[in-house]
Amino acid sequence: MTSRGLTLAELAKAAGGVVRGPATLRIRGVASVDEAGPQDITWISHERYAARLPSSRAGAVLLPADFGGSPMPAILCHDPNLGIARILAALAPPVPQPPPGVHPSAVVDPSAVLGEGVAVGPLCVIGPDARIGPRTVLQAQVFVGAGTELGADCHLWPGAVIREHCRLGERVVLHPNVVIGSDGFGYHFTGTHHQKIPQTGIVVVEDDVEIGACSCVDRAKFGETRIGRGTKIDNLVQVAHNVRTGAHCILVAQAGIAGSSVLGQGVVLGGKVGVRDHVVLGDGVQAAACCCISKDVSGGARVNGIPAVDNRQYLREQAEVRRLPEWSRLLKDLLRRVERLETSADD
Amino acid sequence: MTSRGLTLAELAKAAGGVVRGPATLRIRGVASVDEAGPQDITWISHERYAARLPSSRAGAVLLPADFGGSPMPAILCHDPNLGIARILAALAPPVPQPPPGVHPSAVVDPSAVLGEGVAVGPLCVIGPDARIGPRTVLQAQVFVGAGTELGADCHLWPGAVIREHCRLGERVVLHPNVVIGSDGFGYHFTGTHHQKIPQTGIVVVEDDVEIGACSCVDRAKFGETRIGRGTKIDNLVQVAHNVRTGAHCILVAQAGIAGSSVLGQGVVLGGKVGVRDHVVLGDGVQAAACCCISKDVSGGARVNGIPAVDNRQYLREQAEVRRLPEWSRLLKDLLRRVERLETSADD
Amino acid sequence: MTSRGLTLAELAKAAGGVVRGPATLRIRGVASVDEAGPQDITWISHERYAARLPSSRAGAVLLPADFGGSPMPAILCHDPNLGIARILAALAPPVPQPPPGVHPSAVVDPSAVLGEGVAVGPLCVIGPDARIGPRTVLQAQVFVGAGTELGADCHLWPGAVIREHCRLGERVVLHPNVVIGSDGFGYHFTGTHHQKIPQTGIVVVEDDVEIGACSCVDRAKFGETRIGRGTKIDNLVQVAHNVRTGAHCILVAQAGIAGSSVLGQGVVLGGKVGVRDHVVLGDGVQAAACCCISKDVSGGARVNGIPAVDNRQYLREQAEVRRLPEWSRLLKDLLRRVERLETSADD
Repeated sequence: MTSRGLTLAELAKAAGGVVRGPATLRIRGVASVDEAGPQDITWISHERYAARLPSSRAGAVLLPADFGGSPMPAILCHDPNLGIARILAALAPPVPQPPPGVHPSAVVDPSAVLGEGVAVGPLCVIGPDARIGPRTVLQAQVFVGAGTELGADCHLWPGAVIREHCRLGERVVLHPNVVIGSDGFGYHFTGTHHQKIPQTGIVVVEDDVEIGACSCVDRAKFGETRIGRGTKIDNLVQVAHNVRTGAHCILVAQAGIAGSSVLGQGVVLGGKVGVRDHVVLGDGVQAAACCCISKDVSGGARVNGIPAVDNRQYLREQAEVRRLPEWSRLLKDLLRRVERLETSADD
Repeated sequence: MTSRGLTLAELAKAAGGVVRGPATLRIRGVASVDEAGPQDITWISHERYAARLPSSRAGAVLLPADFGGSPMPAILCHDPNLGIARILAALAPPVPQPPPGVHPSAVVDPSAVLGEGVAVGPLCVIGPDARIGPRTVLQAQVFVGAGTELGADCHLWPGAVIREHCRLGERVVLHPNVVIGSDGFGYHFTGTHHQKIPQTGIVVVEDDVEIGACSCVDRAKFGETRIGRGTKIDNLVQVAHNVRTGAHCILVAQAGIAGSSVLGQGVVLGGKVGVRDHVVLGDGVQAAACCCISKDVSGGARVNGIPAVDNRQYLREQAEVRRLPEWSRLLKDLLRRVERLETSADD
Repeated sequence: MTSRGLTLAELAKAAGGVVRGPATLRIRGVASVDEAGPQDITWISHERYAARLPSSRAGAVLLPADFGGSPMPAILCHDPNLGIARILAALAPPVPQPPPGVHPSAVVDPSAVLGEGVAVGPLCVIGPDARIGPRTVLQAQVFVGAGTELGADCHLWPGAVIREHCRLGERVVLHPNVVIGSDGFGYHFTGTHHQKIPQTGIVVVEDDVEIGACSCVDRAKFGETRIGRGTKIDNLVQVAHNVRTGAHCILVAQAGIAGSSVLGQGVVLGGKVGVRDHVVLGDGVQAAACCCISKDVSGGARVNGIPAVDNRQYLREQAEVRRLPEWSRLLKDLLRRVERLETSADD
């Protein structure tokens, strides 16, 4: 957190709220209700969590506008969850980054074009004819292949690798050791061996996409693999060749999407979700963690299970599986009773 | 794609087919039936997809030899899927790579031995006594540990790490951020803590193996972990210590194989498949995506489920699970009817 | 293995055992019963494996203290599994590492503080105000961010990335391409887009932790993500923001823990296990490979399944699922018999 912090008034402005208490109170950090100290602000998103507030040592609290009294100074706002995100941003120390210019240890091809204010940190490699948009930051040890284009204000962390001829939009963030543009996984079995199918396409990453550490997006067999605008990808996620995701999707850690599948807008894949190849997921589909999707899902559906089915069906089936031992007993009991009835009937 | 492209005659030769139409027609790229333009060739692998052809804007089409007429010039060949792979290869632009020699920013130990035509790109590290075979390419930022040997014509992408004393065959491809030869995961619990078991073995990667981005192959506890000839490994795959795979296996993305398991020839693990330790999979085993194999599987079997069972059994069980809610109702109904019969019988 | 090897007497001392046979016999390696040759020592952990010993070509064997005769010289000890780990350590060749000092190609900020005997290998980057403890080794191409602190005797393999302001204890091992301190995955959906929640916390890795290749530990939203003392993490594991693990946990490859979950001491997650967010696992919980934990688990429990339940319940349910086809037939048969009884009753 910053050394001097901000006043309640400054934080209220950041959060879009109003102060209740001393506007000049100085706050240096954000912490949970239980862990906050006198220099921290905490938050309560709903009246039902209010019980934990009296025992908190927090210096201030961010509350919903209609919240009652509080034992410490407060900021009242419409949406505390959004407000605390804004307060975190206001209090966050600046992320260390290399200064604009090219570090002397970086290896930049003379034909590469760097926009105004670009910062290329130590030991980066930028290939021939690459283009880096204004103010984009390559922290260190980043690789940008030949002919690849990055938009303005991107931020690439150490170890990120983008192979040749790919295109990234503006404000794209690649976390450490991300791989963009590696070959798709395509072979033709000749009867004796797997012959490689050249992967001649590219990857396009649209504006405001963020891709987590060690995640991989393969280049297309031909044409492009595309990550839609505003989509956020967590760590260790696999996106295979020719996949297209819509805008504003969420792919949680260790999810994987096989070749040529298409995600609509706002699709959410929980952690470890698998999507098989050539599947189409409609807008707003939500897939529960650990499920595996093997066929098309229509827009708005929530799915779960392996293979994934509608979530209500999944829950019903799970409940039945839970009851199987009981049924097993009932079934055996019924068999005995029917046998007895049959014996009596025969008499 | 290449700037000038190739003629139909040239493409037919590459695909092993014959031209129907103007042999000098120039084609620059490959695209799907729906996306192809006048400078692209597309392909139809089977008569049943023929309906999409009349509306295609493709300049040419690759067809099975016995295919009927087509609205545009064609190449007829025995196997269009193989043919299009060869056409892609023919049209693919050359992959950018560093020129033969050692980039001045690379750090190569004087005792390392580099074969003829080896290209060591910027910021690579090659340790003492490493040996790099002829024409092998290290794109950039690759690490090759002490005493490690690479065969001829290998291609290592940025961020690939091979630790000490490992051996790679010829034509091995390591995609970005692959890790070869990291310590196996072995500890002995003493009652108070996990004592590390030294991992003193190596990894051997045979000829024509390809390993996808961010995949990991651990070195053996002792002896070797071995990836068989022609095996293809997708992204984010885990291969634990002392695993041995046969020739020509396929490990799809995010699969994982635990310690000491053995895969026969031509085993296919779908995406996210897990294989527990000390398991033996016979030749040609096929494991469906997302399944978890916990015991030996005999050659040729297809398995599915968690835990994995024979695929036909899995499908039967899944069908029954789908029917559980219906059975639940039937069972309760039967119970009532049996009770009624019992009451009548008592009368 | 070492070139000259060690004598049986030396190995017995390492293993804490006693020699039976020629104390000066020289052994150079460790191998399995089937693969050992005359210069190797093998081991038998239990009398029931004794049958394989007569056909072994091993030069010596490590045996339980109460084991009978053996066809080759032996070391007798209390716990052969522990003993062989110690013998492996004794025979292991030294791991190649850069000499103490800073390689001229490394980029070390002048404000960084390096302890005595620190070795910074080629092409490493160390940011401002970082502190590296005595004898810690950065093999090559490692990134240590601004203000990050490493304890004594750590070992970081190539491609490891630790972002700013994190703290590692003593004897921490990071395998190749590990990522520590990447942003947690946190967004607030505004109705039109996902607004990033700044991740302002850090990661703390306690003493004696080992983290496998390509594993990721995200920094906290605020406060810290913490890996407890002696915890061992395998390859490709995801640890999300604000997770805390107790001491001596084991996280097997491709496991993933979502945000803010808490693991007690000695928790074992099998390969590919998923743990959802805000879950608490008590001390000693054991989760079977491929299971997904979606709610709190009390200490000592063994869980399995998706969603995970008590392991005994899981096994019972699985057994019932296996029997479903049989039950289906029984249920249909019962239905017919009840119908027949009803018909008779109506007569």
